[in-house]
Amino acid sequence: MTSLHFAEMEKKERKIMVAVDESQESMHALSWCITNLISETNKLVLLYVRPPSAFYSLDAAGYNFSSDVVDAMEKYSMHLANSVMERAEAVCRDLNATNINMERVVGVGHAKNVICSAVKKLEADTLVMGTHGYGFFKRALLGSVSDHCAKHAKCPVVIVKQP
Amino acid sequence: MTSLHFAEMEKKERKIMVAVDESQESMHALSWCITNLISETNKLVLLYVRPPSAFYSLDAAGYNFSSDVVDAMEKYSMHLANSVMERAEAVCRDLNATNINMERVVGVGHAKNVICSAVKKLEADTLVMGTHGYGFFKRALLGSVSDHCAKHAKCPVVIVKQP
Repeated sequence: MTSLHFAEMEKKERKIMVAVDESQESMHALSWCITNLISETNKLVLLYVRPPSAFYSLDAAGYNFSSDVVDAMEKYSMHLANSVMERAEAVCRDLNATNINMERVVGVGHAKNVICSAVKKLEADTLVMGTHGYGFFKRALLGSVSDHCAKHAKCPVVIVKQP
Repeated sequence: MTSLHFAEMEKKERKIMVAVDESQESMHALSWCITNLISETNKLVLLYVRPPSAFYSLDAAGYNFSSDVVDAMEKYSMHLANSVMERAEAVCRDLNATNINMERVVGVGHAKNVICSAVKKLEADTLVMGTHGYGFFKRALLGSVSDHCAKHAKCPVVIVKQP
């Protein structure tokens, strides 16, 4: 605790939000965060965004999905959320970060909007996210969630690329 | 040193590069970095980018600038670099970060290219930069240095917005 003193003095409890999804990139961003940003005065918020539900989607024949199909998709989506959260917690365990102050949050909607709203609502101090190495066309088509959040989230944003 | 143990174990000497310029935003990014990222195992690299020199520029009448004018511009640009570095060091002092392991680097060229090259050449582990809150037209015209670096720098990039 010599030269670190200045930083320690300034540190209050900070909320670090990590956006996690099925990708390897987001797990890499999480481990970067644990290794570089998280300390005992911080709280880690794991945010997973489920896609908007399919109530208004149409099947191939132009009919609404039956409620059975919608239910099955909901169930699958919740299962996916749990599986991502469990994978994220495994990453924490692998880095011996077991006694971390952690919260799981699951949002529903379009990732870029939900992430920016969650930053505001939960008053996150820093947002950490991975970035998919999409090529030119896919990026042009889909836009980039990390680009959007870097511009619009109301806190510093860390973009972690897969090495 | 309780729950921090996991992170400390993982930490080697890391190089944190902060791109500084005349803007308040970049000084805010520097103080975020000192408060959140810098520890005694890290090295802080302050990078300032001077614009490319004016040898090929033309004055209003279409002539090359005289060597006197070029010299004066060079001198002014070096003076500006020094003044930004001094301001950055004042920010460190204000946060009591006086015994930080620090290096000053001045590059010449277009900011977005120089910053990405410097990350690669100096093997920075993290790049921290502010972002100018340009409006739509200025951003479309100038492009955004931080956008470019977030995409192309070969390390995690922290984009710190002025609150």
